[in-house]
Amino acid sequence: DDLASQGGVQVRRSNKKPVVLVLGSGWAAHSCIKVIDTDACDVIVVSPRNHFCFTPMLPSTAVGTVEFRSLLEPIRVSNEFVGYLEADAEILDLESKTVTCSAVGAYESGYRPNFTVPYDMLVVAVGEQSATFGVPGVTEHCSFMKEVRDTVKIRRKLGETFELAALPGTSEEERRRLLHFVVVGGGPTGVEFSGTLSDYVRSDLRRKYPLLMPYVRVSLLQSAQGILTQFDSGLARRALDDLQRTGVEIRTGVRVIQVTDRQVVLKGGERMDYGLCVWSCGNAPRPLVKSLIDSLPEQNGSKLAVDPFLRVIGATDVLAMGDCSAIVNAPLPATAQVAAQQGSYLAHMINKGYVIGTGGMDSVPPA
Amino acid sequence: DDLASQGGVQVRRSNKKPVVLVLGSGWAAHSCIKVIDTDACDVIVVSPRNHFCFTPMLPSTAVGTVEFRSLLEPIRVSNEFVGYLEADAEILDLESKTVTCSAVGAYESGYRPNFTVPYDMLVVAVGEQSATFGVPGVTEHCSFMKEVRDTVKIRRKLGETFELAALPGTSEEERRRLLHFVVVGGGPTGVEFSGTLSDYVRSDLRRKYPLLMPYVRVSLLQSAQGILTQFDSGLARRALDDLQRTGVEIRTGVRVIQVTDRQVVLKGGERMDYGLCVWSCGNAPRPLVKSLIDSLPEQNGSKLAVDPFLRVIGATDVLAMGDCSAIVNAPLPATAQVAAQQGSYLAHMINKGYVIGTGGMDSVPPA
Repeated sequence: DDLASQGGVQVRRSNKKPVVLVLGSGWAAHSCIKVIDTDACDVIVVSPRNHFCFTPMLPSTAVGTVEFRSLLEPIRVSNEFVGYLEADAEILDLESKTVTCSAVGAYESGYRPNFTVPYDMLVVAVGEQSATFGVPGVTEHCSFMKEVRDTVKIRRKLGETFELAALPGTSEEERRRLLHFVVVGGGPTGVEFSGTLSDYVRSDLRRKYPLLMPYVRVSLLQSAQGILTQFDSGLARRALDDLQRTGVEIRTGVRVIQVTDRQVVLKGGERMDYGLCVWSCGNAPRPLVKSLIDSLPEQNGSKLAVDPFLRVIGATDVLAMGDCSAIVNAPLPATAQVAAQQGSYLAHMINKGYVIGTGGMDSVPPA
Repeated sequence: DDLASQGGVQVRRSNKKPVVLVLGSGWAAHSCIKVIDTDACDVIVVSPRNHFCFTPMLPSTAVGTVEFRSLLEPIRVSNEFVGYLEADAEILDLESKTVTCSAVGAYESGYRPNFTVPYDMLVVAVGEQSATFGVPGVTEHCSFMKEVRDTVKIRRKLGETFELAALPGTSEEERRRLLHFVVVGGGPTGVEFSGTLSDYVRSDLRRKYPLLMPYVRVSLLQSAQGILTQFDSGLARRALDDLQRTGVEIRTGVRVIQVTDRQVVLKGGERMDYGLCVWSCGNAPRPLVKSLIDSLPEQNGSKLAVDPFLRVIGATDVLAMGDCSAIVNAPLPATAQVAAQQGSYLAHMINKGYVIGTGGMDSVPPA
């Protein structure tokens, strides 16, 4: 067809096989394409990221304990019979069963190719994005802990702040600012990263920058009264003790209301100078998911409501899994384990030739 | 002193030890600081690059065969008793025996700290920079093969061109352009890299992008009539055969007169579309070396003329080694081996307490 002749990929290899279009390349999507039977269907993956990332070790790559490439598997290698397109899925048309996509890469002229992919079955597994809660300056000035490109930036920035701080032309005050590392958010990511960072800057870098050690500070800011509030309180207390022993200064009950290029502003007016600010305050829905939810009268949450067969309620031939979804009346934790299990469950279901049809708690199970 | 109290480093740890200021962190400087006795002198290294790089394997990092960090040794680890400052040395004052430096990193405001380092003995080991011969567009549009940051960029760019080329929204013509890789310069670096690149894009990437293989081309452009002209002709012929067998299209006797964002323009008017252009046409002196040569009446070449003791001719207490220097009447090849041997020779000489004094073929040897 047209797309196949235009592109290096064949979107539909024959007219007999159904096209399964998977959006995303995280835990759920990766596990799905590892299991799916490409003899029975044409599988196309659209994602801005051409690799799967083993996220639990992401914080360690920011300080160099683990090399970036050790965490990555190219999607084209995960399953070489799957078609992969490096693009953002921008518009879902449930009527015509097509998704309009825009390339991640651009030509020298700035032009980004865009194209439309038809599907017979759509799998939404795009995860979530970092929540900023509309706090001004976060997007511009903070680092995140979500993708390898985030930790690449953090690693470079850590090197730069120490080298700048070590120069004779740097004032005492600037040195103190540059070496103050602030982590905002006391959930699992913020706790893991602030501990890793404190270990690194106080222990590993001691040999390289012995004279700078008195200036180094790592602060963890948390708006609730405790850290790791979603876990058992004994476990949270142990984590708190461990973090403090590592030299992390923990401040609970503080709310960040603005981030400038060099200061974190707290509710109440306090301003903290910083050299690096990492923002890890939970997740929010991606625009694509939000617009899909808004377009379906049956949906009204911040995640796609699915039935126990992962069918999106109110949509036809659309499935969702991983962090962007929630099973109605039986929500599961937003973890890698759940997403990976859903991915392989869905692939097995598709391999058995299920006809998905319309999703909904009252709809009949897929045939 | 002032510098010590301002900065995290102590430029002069006591008033008794002489300060040896080394400019550079390449083969010569690295080998020198490995051997130099920091009990006898205070050693300060100023270089924009805070690591030594094992340059012979640089082309392999561009395609991922070797990981970047495997080639690097932080200067602060090479010798932890040496003071290191990440900065460009900008102004040498031979009268007052000081070097004025500007930080590589900048504050958020854009301000770069600058400072002056006094020396008793100055060692210039800054190497050379890529020669562009004033060809318009080279600096803006070409990649180089000199530093790890260059090959990081090439690796990212290679990934981007293949992903863009694989999209259905990319035209046949653009696909052909994106996957044409042009290497300019038929010396050792260009020959090594074009072969490595051709192997990678035709063999390693075949599994990931089978449908794109018909579009892939690697061209090596050389202005002379043969490649590797500085080597024995039998060896050059063998290299030529090997390269062609790897699938590199070699064009000799062509001169590049301009590079645009997507075309290489040859003398005669031919224009070649490209997706990635790597420029490796030899080296030229760095501005600092050029200004030092211009300031000394005894100097007139493109490298710093030194006597057999590596003393810069016409200067007092200034030494030079590696690619930025040439021994009068006994020039040595500009190789890693020569630079490393000069570095350790110089360190041994300094360790023996030599008083360097004025350099020159007629001057007395150092005491």
